[in-house]
Amino acid sequence: MKLNCDLGESYGPWRMGQDEHVMPLIDMANVACGFHAADPMVIRQTVALAARHKVEVGAHPSYHDIVGFGRRSIVHSPEEIQALMLYQLGALEGLCRAEGLLLSYVKPHGALNNDMMRDATILRAVMEAVRTYHTNLPLMIPVTTHYRRHQELAGRVGIPLLLEAFADRAYDDQGQLVSRKLEGAVHHDPQRIVDQALSFATKGGITSVNGQWLELPADSLCVHGDNDNALAAVRAIRDALQSAQ
Amino acid sequence: MKLNCDLGESYGPWRMGQDEHVMPLIDMANVACGFHAADPMVIRQTVALAARHKVEVGAHPSYHDIVGFGRRSIVHSPEEIQALMLYQLGALEGLCRAEGLLLSYVKPHGALNNDMMRDATILRAVMEAVRTYHTNLPLMIPVTTHYRRHQELAGRVGIPLLLEAFADRAYDDQGQLVSRKLEGAVHHDPQRIVDQALSFATKGGITSVNGQWLELPADSLCVHGDNDNALAAVRAIRDALQSAQ
Amino acid sequence: MKLNCDLGESYGPWRMGQDEHVMPLIDMANVACGFHAADPMVIRQTVALAARHKVEVGAHPSYHDIVGFGRRSIVHSPEEIQALMLYQLGALEGLCRAEGLLLSYVKPHGALNNDMMRDATILRAVMEAVRTYHTNLPLMIPVTTHYRRHQELAGRVGIPLLLEAFADRAYDDQGQLVSRKLEGAVHHDPQRIVDQALSFATKGGITSVNGQWLELPADSLCVHGDNDNALAAVRAIRDALQSAQ
Amino acid sequence: MKLNCDLGESYGPWRMGQDEHVMPLIDMANVACGFHAADPMVIRQTVALAARHKVEVGAHPSYHDIVGFGRRSIVHSPEEIQALMLYQLGALEGLCRAEGLLLSYVKPHGALNNDMMRDATILRAVMEAVRTYHTNLPLMIPVTTHYRRHQELAGRVGIPLLLEAFADRAYDDQGQLVSRKLEGAVHHDPQRIVDQALSFATKGGITSVNGQWLELPADSLCVHGDNDNALAAVRAIRDALQSAQ
Repeated sequence: MKLNCDLGESYGPWRMGQDEHVMPLIDMANVACGFHAADPMVIRQTVALAARHKVEVGAHPSYHDIVGFGRRSIVHSPEEIQALMLYQLGALEGLCRAEGLLLSYVKPHGALNNDMMRDATILRAVMEAVRTYHTNLPLMIPVTTHYRRHQELAGRVGIPLLLEAFADRAYDDQGQLVSRKLEGAVHHDPQRIVDQALSFATKGGITSVNGQWLELPADSLCVHGDNDNALAAVRAIRDALQSAQ
Repeated sequence: MKLNCDLGESYGPWRMGQDEHVMPLIDMANVACGFHAADPMVIRQTVALAARHKVEVGAHPSYHDIVGFGRRSIVHSPEEIQALMLYQLGALEGLCRAEGLLLSYVKPHGALNNDMMRDATILRAVMEAVRTYHTNLPLMIPVTTHYRRHQELAGRVGIPLLLEAFADRAYDDQGQLVSRKLEGAVHHDPQRIVDQALSFATKGGITSVNGQWLELPADSLCVHGDNDNALAAVRAIRDALQSAQ
Repeated sequence: MKLNCDLGESYGPWRMGQDEHVMPLIDMANVACGFHAADPMVIRQTVALAARHKVEVGAHPSYHDIVGFGRRSIVHSPEEIQALMLYQLGALEGLCRAEGLLLSYVKPHGALNNDMMRDATILRAVMEAVRTYHTNLPLMIPVTTHYRRHQELAGRVGIPLLLEAFADRAYDDQGQLVSRKLEGAVHHDPQRIVDQALSFATKGGITSVNGQWLELPADSLCVHGDNDNALAAVRAIRDALQSAQ
Repeated sequence: MKLNCDLGESYGPWRMGQDEHVMPLIDMANVACGFHAADPMVIRQTVALAARHKVEVGAHPSYHDIVGFGRRSIVHSPEEIQALMLYQLGALEGLCRAEGLLLSYVKPHGALNNDMMRDATILRAVMEAVRTYHTNLPLMIPVTTHYRRHQELAGRVGIPLLLEAFADRAYDDQGQLVSRKLEGAVHHDPQRIVDQALSFATKGGITSVNGQWLELPADSLCVHGDNDNALAAVRAIRDALQSAQ
């Protein structure tokens, strides 16, 4: 069970996150590609940091919306989605070359991620962009109870799929993340976070907010590195996962 | 003697150039990479057009300045220049993948091109960016009477060099383009343009505005496709070069 | 019956429209404010041209989306809509000062215009932004059969309303523009365009595509200036309106 | 002796500065206008904070360069400088209207500020932009030993001038700030900062790094609010100035 984290989200003179502190704790870095965060120098430094800690670099492409941080849905045709993804994947890998690295996977960011999970046309466009870029490049998407359908679609398109889960978020009975607008959507109790991480890692699923069992076979857990509590949670998850092996 | 042309300079809803008309006439397309012109969809369409006409795709990277079309010098450190070039080269090649193409060469645009020709630190940063991207990727720069010095520097950095010349521009005794602000800087007489193209192709140089011989061994001639006169000139150059073979 | 036209839609090195040709023919210029088109120099020149022809300057604010030309809906809170409108109205009026002009009215552009006509919360945010900017500044919106409701809302917010109509577009029985995706949505026959303009001007309405009478009391007709046919149509409408007086 | 501070330098999701903490301590807020920092929502919030603390709002216009934070010189014609200033002044004042405020003054940012102080053509373009915007709007520029020449130029153009000085920066014998690249350029000793502030306020000048007296009649001191030491220095300066009255 690998840990992935969104990184490289600084921009020009503005810092975001604590990349130097979280990078040593994770396995996979989802690096912003310049469309919601990260100018070329930020990408350059983030990729160098990943190389130093032998962390895999994944592309974290987004709609082009710096002020909105890629969190606002913008209507795009499938062709436009493919074009903006190929642009960003290439741009990030261009900077990876300075470290002798290649892209390891792709995880769409923000509104693009949300949109692909609710619209099969967008998901297909995303998958085809990844396949066009490189036939063996995996796409990382959130694991849901529909994961088999996603795996089938990825199989037809011809790309590997990675499923990610969240240790600190509650899931409803349909295997969807509980909306952040609702109470209880985010776990703050460190023990609960660790327990959920262990459940994903050792049982292949978790129980929903209503106590129902959800089979959610995750390949990776998404963690955060933007504050001290978040960093402490990552360390706790790491330690627990290692002990459980 | 190959013909190269700056292409893919549309942006969002705005069209520039007559790419469909000039593409069949050239050998090398210098494609904008999104920093002075060209959004991902424009790049996608330009690369497809190049593929259809079996034209080589070169990257045309720029300072990031859409409104100024990359024509305004902006102070950058060598590290920043390398980062913005790797970003743009990768981005363009990301979209080339949709056509099974690779980048064939790199030709810096506008103010970045001017700056590298007057500042050895910038030229070196440009060369190192190209080498970092790919060890066999040629850099295209304007041929001047200092071309040997440029070839030596490229040799030390470890990249091939392509030298480009202009059939429609006057050169001074130092082998520099006569400033567009001066009279006679640009040739408008079609025969004169064809003669200068032939002189580059068959004699390895031309005479300066003052009648002095300039040894300028060009690999490629830069042509333009933005109006009917320009297209007629390209056709005339092509025909003359073929007859001269 | 005044004629209005979207102008100032060039950007950096890219030209759009034939502003010099259409400006002498219209009464009101909807000038782009930099968020979907027009950099400060383009605005400066457009406002000078309007001043020269004694044409009223209206603000044409948009979501911030240059590549998408403001045509893509982007989710915004009412506060964000107010902020982006105040920013653009002020920016345009800042450049009007160089000609001693003030803003005469506001007409939202593209997706922002569409969104305000289908979402009362957005329409209210737009109206409040206009009122906050200046209590006597009119907002121009498309006339529909719901125009009384719009007038009431504007009255409650405290701004004047201007209603615009299209001489070259078919209207359905609900007084909505027929979608451009459907056949017959756009009139190409010059006589038909003139007849529809005259009907708006003299009868206070037109007949729908199904022959039903629509009461649509327009204050202004939106015309286009981007090609020779469009310019010819504007001249024909002008002449017909003058003869009808 | 008023205190001014650069504020409103956040952007989209990125925070910069501690505006809530420094605003209560200053008299004049130099608010970013969207070209080097600050989107419309950031401006909206900054202006509201200024209104709450009865702080004057000044425009802090810049070259358009978000990633470079307006610190990189970009070649502009005088007409372009006037256009970008009128755009930004208007945009900021558009948002001031939501608080019933007007612009109190203009202080150019970063590279634009540096460029106007070394190039009389640019300074004149800046002054004319301010006068075009509003005939009584003061321009704030750094006080140097050439301040009389600047006052004369402002008088000829027809705008009031405000002179600003720095309590925490060393001045050379020519009354220029010592370059940050040199040792001793920035004072860190709180007492020294307070002493220099008092000298500006009560003696109309300070001594240079070489002990030479410099007549530098400042109207305002530029302070910083980006960290706790800076905030402590502002409080110390305020207290000292009040005691000295």
